[in-house]
Amino acid sequence: MDGLIPVVVQDSKSKNVLMLAYANKEALENTLKTGKGTYWSRSRKELWVKGATSGNTQRIRRVLADCDYDALLYIVDQKGPVCHTGAQTCFHKEFKLEESL
Amino acid sequence: MDGLIPVVVQDSKSKNVLMLAYANKEALENTLKTGKGTYWSRSRKELWVKGATSGNTQRIRRVLADCDYDALLYIVDQKGPVCHTGAQTCFHKEFKLEESL
Repeated sequence: MDGLIPVVVQDSKSKNVLMLAYANKEALENTLKTGKGTYWSRSRKELWVKGATSGNTQRIRRVLADCDYDALLYIVDQKGPVCHTGAQTCFHKEFKLEESL
Repeated sequence: MDGLIPVVVQDSKSKNVLMLAYANKEALENTLKTGKGTYWSRSRKELWVKGATSGNTQRIRRVLADCDYDALLYIVDQKGPVCHTGAQTCFHKEFKLEESL
Protein backbone atom coordinates (compact mmCIF):
# COMPACT_ATOMS: atom_id res chain seq x y z
CA MET A 1 0.00 0.00 0.00
CA ASP A 2 3.02 2.36 -0.37
CA GLY A 3 2.92 3.34 3.31
CA LEU A 4 -0.74 4.37 3.07
CA ILE A 5 -3.38 3.30 5.55
CA PRO A 6 -7.14 3.58 4.96
CA VAL A 7 -8.97 6.07 7.19
CA VAL A 8 -12.66 5.72 8.00
CA VAL A 9 -14.19 9.09 8.84
CA GLN A 10 -17.23 9.19 11.10
CA ASP A 11 -19.36 12.14 12.22
CA SER A 12 -19.15 12.63 15.99
CA LYS A 13 -22.82 13.57 16.37
CA SER A 14 -24.83 11.59 13.81
CA LYS A 15 -22.31 8.70 13.86
CA ASN A 16 -22.80 8.45 10.09
CA VAL A 17 -19.81 7.17 8.13
CA LEU A 18 -18.82 10.18 6.03
CA MET A 19 -15.98 9.05 3.75
CA LEU A 20 -12.99 6.79 3.34
CA ALA A 21 -9.59 8.26 2.54
CA TYR A 22 -5.91 7.39 3.04
CA ALA A 23 -3.17 8.66 5.34
CA ASN A 24 0.58 8.36 5.44
CA LYS A 25 2.70 9.09 8.52
CA GLU A 26 2.83 12.82 7.76
CA ALA A 27 -0.96 13.05 7.36
CA LEU A 28 -1.57 11.27 10.66
CA GLU A 29 1.00 13.47 12.44
CA ASN A 30 -0.62 16.62 11.06
CA THR A 31 -4.07 15.38 12.11
CA LEU A 32 -2.92 14.73 15.68
CA LYS A 33 -0.96 18.01 15.94
CA THR A 34 -3.46 20.40 14.37
CA GLY A 35 -6.80 18.68 15.05
CA LYS A 36 -7.65 19.08 11.35
CA GLY A 37 -8.57 16.00 9.30
CA THR A 38 -5.55 15.43 7.05
CA TYR A 39 -5.02 12.78 4.37
CA TRP A 40 -2.78 11.79 1.50
CA SER A 41 -4.40 12.52 -1.84
CA ARG A 42 -3.63 9.53 -4.07
CA SER A 43 -4.72 11.40 -7.21
CA ARG A 44 -2.82 14.63 -6.52
CA LYS A 45 0.03 12.87 -4.67
CA GLU A 46 0.14 15.50 -1.95
CA LEU A 47 -0.89 16.13 1.65
CA TRP A 48 -4.56 17.09 1.76
CA VAL A 49 -6.08 19.04 4.64
CA LYS A 50 -9.77 18.37 4.11
CA GLY A 51 -11.62 21.62 3.44
CA ALA A 52 -8.48 23.66 2.70
CA THR A 53 -10.03 24.75 -0.58
CA SER A 54 -13.77 23.97 -0.09
CA GLY A 55 -14.01 25.30 3.48
CA ASN A 56 -15.71 22.02 4.50
CA THR A 57 -13.19 21.30 7.25
CA GLN A 58 -13.10 18.54 9.85
CA ARG A 59 -12.38 19.20 13.52
CA ILE A 60 -10.89 16.02 14.95
CA ARG A 61 -12.50 14.62 18.11
CA ARG A 62 -10.86 11.20 18.33
CA VAL A 63 -8.35 9.15 16.34
CA LEU A 64 -8.25 5.37 16.73
CA ALA A 65 -6.41 2.51 15.09
CA ASP A 66 -7.76 -0.98 14.72
CA CYS A 67 -6.44 -4.04 16.51
CA ASP A 68 -3.62 -4.73 14.02
CA TYR A 69 -2.90 -1.11 13.10
CA ASP A 70 -3.86 -1.46 9.46
CA ALA A 71 -6.77 0.99 9.47
CA LEU A 72 -7.58 4.29 11.20
CA LEU A 73 -10.82 5.88 12.38
CA TYR A 74 -11.13 9.67 12.59
CA ILE A 75 -14.18 10.86 14.55
CA VAL A 76 -14.86 14.43 13.46
CA ASP A 77 -17.11 17.45 13.56
CA GLN A 78 -17.77 17.94 9.85
CA LYS A 79 -18.41 21.51 8.68
CA GLY A 80 -20.71 21.59 5.64
CA PRO A 81 -21.21 18.67 3.26
CA VAL A 82 -18.37 16.15 3.22
CA CYS A 83 -18.87 14.98 -0.38
CA HIS A 84 -17.85 16.81 -3.51
CA THR A 85 -21.39 16.07 -4.77
CA GLY A 86 -22.80 18.16 -1.91
CA ALA A 87 -24.15 15.09 -0.09
CA GLN A 88 -23.88 14.74 3.69
CA THR A 89 -22.01 11.43 3.28
CA CYS A 90 -19.94 10.03 0.44
CA PHE A 91 -21.72 6.68 0.93
CA HIS A 92 -24.95 7.28 -0.95
CA LYS A 93 -24.99 4.63 -3.72
CA GLU A 94 -27.16 1.87 -2.29
CA PHE A 95 -27.10 -1.71 -3.56
CA LYS A 96 -30.21 -3.83 -3.54
CA LEU A 97 -29.83 -6.99 -1.53
CA GLU A 98 -30.25 -10.28 -3.46
CA GLU A 99 -29.28 -8.41 -6.60
CA SER A 100 -26.87 -9.89 -9.11
CA LEU A 101 -24.09 -7.59 -10.20
CA MET B 1 -5.36 -2.86 -5.22
CA ASP B 2 -5.63 -6.16 -7.18
CA GLY B 3 -9.39 -5.74 -7.64
CA LEU B 4 -9.95 -5.30 -3.91
CA ILE B 5 -12.08 -2.54 -2.42
CA PRO B 6 -12.03 -1.51 1.25
CA VAL B 7 -15.22 -2.21 3.18
CA VAL B 8 -16.22 -0.21 6.25
CA VAL B 9 -18.45 -2.25 8.55
CA GLN B 10 -20.87 -0.42 10.81
CA ASP B 11 -23.26 -1.76 13.46
CA SER B 12 -26.88 -1.05 12.52
CA LYS B 13 -27.97 -0.30 16.09
CA SER B 14 -25.05 1.37 17.90
CA LYS B 15 -23.72 2.88 14.64
CA ASN B 16 -20.22 2.07 15.92
CA VAL B 17 -17.63 1.36 13.23
CA LEU B 18 -16.78 -2.29 13.80
CA MET B 19 -13.98 -3.17 11.37
CA LEU B 20 -12.40 -2.51 8.01
CA ALA B 21 -11.89 -5.37 5.57
CA TYR B 22 -11.64 -5.89 1.81
CA ALA B 23 -13.95 -7.31 -0.82
CA ASN B 24 -13.54 -8.47 -4.39
CA LYS B 25 -16.43 -8.93 -6.82
CA GLU B 26 -17.15 -12.45 -5.56
CA ALA B 27 -17.28 -11.30 -1.91
CA LEU B 28 -19.67 -8.45 -2.73
CA GLU B 29 -21.88 -10.77 -4.80
CA ASN B 30 -22.02 -13.30 -1.96
CA THR B 31 -22.85 -10.56 0.54
CA LEU B 32 -25.75 -9.29 -1.58
CA LYS B 33 -27.06 -12.78 -2.38
CA THR B 34 -26.81 -14.40 1.05
CA GLY B 35 -27.11 -11.39 3.38
CA LYS B 36 -23.96 -12.60 5.19
CA GLY B 37 -20.98 -10.25 5.53
CA THR B 38 -18.40 -11.66 3.13
CA TYR B 39 -14.86 -10.44 2.43
CA TRP B 40 -11.63 -11.40 0.73
CA SER B 41 -9.01 -12.48 3.26
CA ARG B 42 -5.74 -10.91 2.11
CA SER B 43 -3.71 -13.12 4.46
CA ARG B 44 -5.40 -16.42 3.60
CA LYS B 45 -6.12 -15.42 -0.01
CA GLU B 46 -9.62 -16.84 0.09
CA LEU B 47 -13.25 -15.83 0.38
CA TRP B 48 -14.11 -15.18 4.02
CA VAL B 49 -17.65 -15.34 5.35
CA LYS B 50 -17.29 -13.49 8.64
CA GLY B 51 -18.14 -15.80 11.54
CA ALA B 52 -17.93 -19.02 9.50
CA THR B 53 -15.49 -20.41 12.08
CA SER B 54 -16.04 -18.11 15.12
CA GLY B 55 -19.84 -18.02 14.92
CA ASN B 56 -19.69 -14.22 15.16
CA THR B 57 -21.66 -13.68 11.97
CA GLN B 58 -22.96 -10.51 10.37
CA ARG B 59 -26.48 -10.16 9.03
CA ILE B 60 -26.42 -7.53 6.29
CA ARG B 61 -28.92 -4.68 6.55
CA ARG B 62 -27.61 -2.30 3.89
CA VAL B 63 -24.74 -2.15 1.41
CA LEU B 64 -23.62 1.19 0.01
CA ALA B 65 -20.80 2.41 -2.21
CA ASP B 66 -19.25 5.83 -2.02
CA CYS B 67 -19.56 8.52 -4.65
CA ASP B 68 -16.71 7.24 -6.84
CA TYR B 69 -17.22 3.52 -6.11
CA ASP B 70 -13.85 3.01 -4.47
CA ALA B 71 -15.12 2.04 -1.02
CA LEU B 72 -18.05 0.07 0.38
CA LEU B 73 -20.09 0.35 3.57
CA TYR B 74 -21.79 -2.72 5.03
CA ILE B 75 -24.36 -1.93 7.73
CA VAL B 76 -24.83 -5.09 9.77
CA ASP B 77 -26.33 -6.79 12.78
CA GLN B 78 -23.20 -8.16 14.44
CA LYS B 79 -23.58 -11.37 16.45
CA GLY B 80 -21.06 -11.51 19.33
CA PRO B 81 -17.80 -9.58 19.41
CA VAL B 82 -16.48 -8.53 16.00
CA CYS B 83 -12.80 -8.50 16.97
CA HIS B 84 -10.54 -11.50 17.36
CA THR B 85 -9.45 -9.88 20.68
CA GLY B 86 -13.03 -10.21 21.95
CA ALA B 87 -13.63 -6.43 21.74
CA GLN B 88 -16.93 -5.01 20.48
CA THR B 89 -15.09 -3.03 17.80
CA CYS B 90 -11.72 -3.54 16.12
CA PHE B 91 -11.05 0.20 16.56
CA HIS B 92 -9.87 0.33 20.15
CA LYS B 93 -6.33 1.73 20.00
CA GLU B 94 -6.78 5.42 20.75
CA PHE B 95 -4.22 8.07 19.84
CA LYS B 96 -3.73 11.12 22.02
CA LEU B 97 -4.27 14.35 20.16
CA GLU B 98 -1.27 16.74 19.96
CA GLU B 99 0.97 13.72 20.38
CA SER B 100 4.09 13.27 18.29
CA LEU B 101 4.47 9.84 16.75
